[in-house]
Amino acid sequence: MDSRNFILKGNFAYSESQQGITARENAWLVCADGISQGFYAEIPAEYRDFPVTDMGDRIAIPGLIDLHIHASQYSYRGTKMDLELLDWLNQNAFPEEAKFKDLDYAKKAYSIFAENMKHSATTRACIFATVHEEATELLMDLMEETGLKTMIGKVNMDRNSPDYLEEASADASAEATVRWLEKTIHKYRNVRPILTPRFIPSCSDELMNRLGTIRHTFGIPVQSHLSENQGEISLVEELCPEADFYGDAYDRCGMFGGEPGTIMAHCVWSSREELQRMKKQGVFVAHCPQSNANLASGIAPVRRYLDEGLSVGLGSDVAGGSTESIFRAMVDAIQASKLRWRLVDPSLKPLTLEEAFYLATRGGGAFFGSVGSFERGYELDVIVLDDQNLKHPQPLGVRDRLERIVYLGDERNVWKKYVAGSEIF
Amino acid sequence: MDSRNFILKGNFAYSESQQGITARENAWLVCADGISQGFYAEIPAEYRDFPVTDMGDRIAIPGLIDLHIHASQYSYRGTKMDLELLDWLNQNAFPEEAKFKDLDYAKKAYSIFAENMKHSATTRACIFATVHEEATELLMDLMEETGLKTMIGKVNMDRNSPDYLEEASADASAEATVRWLEKTIHKYRNVRPILTPRFIPSCSDELMNRLGTIRHTFGIPVQSHLSENQGEISLVEELCPEADFYGDAYDRCGMFGGEPGTIMAHCVWSSREELQRMKKQGVFVAHCPQSNANLASGIAPVRRYLDEGLSVGLGSDVAGGSTESIFRAMVDAIQASKLRWRLVDPSLKPLTLEEAFYLATRGGGAFFGSVGSFERGYELDVIVLDDQNLKHPQPLGVRDRLERIVYLGDERNVWKKYVAGSEIF
Repeated sequence: MDSRNFILKGNFAYSESQQGITARENAWLVCADGISQGFYAEIPAEYRDFPVTDMGDRIAIPGLIDLHIHASQYSYRGTKMDLELLDWLNQNAFPEEAKFKDLDYAKKAYSIFAENMKHSATTRACIFATVHEEATELLMDLMEETGLKTMIGKVNMDRNSPDYLEEASADASAEATVRWLEKTIHKYRNVRPILTPRFIPSCSDELMNRLGTIRHTFGIPVQSHLSENQGEISLVEELCPEADFYGDAYDRCGMFGGEPGTIMAHCVWSSREELQRMKKQGVFVAHCPQSNANLASGIAPVRRYLDEGLSVGLGSDVAGGSTESIFRAMVDAIQASKLRWRLVDPSLKPLTLEEAFYLATRGGGAFFGSVGSFERGYELDVIVLDDQNLKHPQPLGVRDRLERIVYLGDERNVWKKYVAGSEIF
Repeated sequence: MDSRNFILKGNFAYSESQQGITARENAWLVCADGISQGFYAEIPAEYRDFPVTDMGDRIAIPGLIDLHIHASQYSYRGTKMDLELLDWLNQNAFPEEAKFKDLDYAKKAYSIFAENMKHSATTRACIFATVHEEATELLMDLMEETGLKTMIGKVNMDRNSPDYLEEASADASAEATVRWLEKTIHKYRNVRPILTPRFIPSCSDELMNRLGTIRHTFGIPVQSHLSENQGEISLVEELCPEADFYGDAYDRCGMFGGEPGTIMAHCVWSSREELQRMKKQGVFVAHCPQSNANLASGIAPVRRYLDEGLSVGLGSDVAGGSTESIFRAMVDAIQASKLRWRLVDPSLKPLTLEEAFYLATRGGGAFFGSVGSFERGYELDVIVLDDQNLKHPQPLGVRDRLERIVYLGDERNVWKKYVAGSEIF
């Protein structure tokens, strides 16, 4: 029998909408071929030979989704954090990323990343590698083995970057991208390549246009950065005077929305026009609150994005963020929204736990299809949470226990993990 | 030989000033009678029979200081976080604190607190209990056994509080305080009582005056809350129209500075006058950035407090904060200062790692005397940090390793702990 046929018994919590967390106690969740068949009070006849895992008093939630993380920056997470974006890139990110030219170093560094991602609460992620084709393929190989579903991109950058990292020309960058795509596009079950221009300041118009064509030819999604920092936005205005706004510089090359999807990280300072374009073209926002604090970028108005119906998920943005924990990203998103409400704009109410949970599961999951919930028809990503180490003097309900795990938990609390119905551990 | 005579060998990091972290590699730190005798390149003759602990490649730093934590709120940390201060008190804090009337409950809840504090990176803390005399003494007994140095207060509150928690009158509250002090003031080696009026809104003028007299009689320090939230400040203006500012309402009763010391938690919205009075009278600020975000209070201008020479340390403020980790408080302090700089006041530069480390060690330690550094003459609180679980593909220096532990570490990274030279584990 397909190992992706099974039944989980116990407590469940998941999002049906932004407003609430649906909690089910003592329920049976059926998974067939990796797809949720929904909940039952008792096991229907057709599933009665499926193996049952009794989770005891633990709590199952959908796997968490990280829409924005730099695998190559994982090795220096939590160091040299006292810098702003453009300085941080020059002093920290670029010199470190250059090391991935050396495949031995890449293997050492990416193995640590893959191992920690495997044991984290994250089941799916959109990942930046570096400009290096071989190292990017190596990262894809390593992530394939974890069983997590990921999209991984070879980075493009042909201008305004240090010589030791910059690609030789738009041509060279585009050709390397095509070589990399041809090698990897059909190679994996769990990993999918994603086009990854670093951001407009690092990519010439010529390169962006070439990437737009490649995207069309290969039919692959796009990830990049957008409106993170005011200095960066001014730089884009200088570099692309013909663009109506930062996002328009992507859009003019066919790299801003449409199918297959686009994720833009940050959107801290997006203009109304930019947001309208994103909504119209289905561009996802990867909200990265910890990175936006660490790099002193600001606080994105996520309440507005939700109210206006944009597609939003969370990103850890390691190493702008220090940790891959999406629990932490949920808390950071709530806390940042409270500070923004208090200090900047009292018309935008703080996010609730329910909304942060939605962003971390269903909100980001939508980029991968029907992912991020337990409703019938969803691909079944599950993490089973054990909160025994968070001692409490009295009984708590499922929703409060979940809140406590979000605020206080870490990878130790992940007891079991399934991705699209496949058991990871 | 006194077990507080020993030598540590290895890597050390500590603050000599706010500006820098002093790192020493392959050094010997001598402790005699619990007091630092400073560093040596080789062991002097007079100490050569002291036992030596070789820490290997680990890093020793001064124990972390928590200037503000509510032990009674520890049991519901990380739950019901989507509320502002005054609602949070009524819906969360007050009903939960009422349970500590029941000593069985108190024992269960405080044992969890004491156990987790013992294994945390914290070596000293200033702790709120509840109004209950017996439960407060029980907490003191439990904390005494941990070996941590703590100041613990029975809370006073005789107005604007729910019937089920409020003390019957100013007299009743003052008398209970005297009974509690008489029983506990000479009882412990590690625990010292501290006067703990909850805050002005909960304490009548009569009660505050009685506490001022008690303070004078018994010669004990004071802790309370100050200028945390704008609604709270307005309430104090109504309740104490004669006070020049919130802090003045404490000062008029002799509860704001002088010896022995005073700690005021938060000071998010302190006026210039209030700060001047605090500086003049040596009132310590307990900066609690996570709580100030969770309760949407705002961001205290810590840079200004440091520049003006106020005494400042960090507080976890569980359960306004969700965790007792002072590593986390350091990161929260840095991140909050960056957001404040970006969004509120570009004249107040963000805190650096060095400054946050200073606040967490020497800044808060000063409330306990010569505490929080490794310089000769300091009481020796040490935590020895093991960062093996934070894997890295290449060697890092002591300062970068420390930054990584601050951003990513938790109690798992505390390998050994000493308080005033006594080994805790």
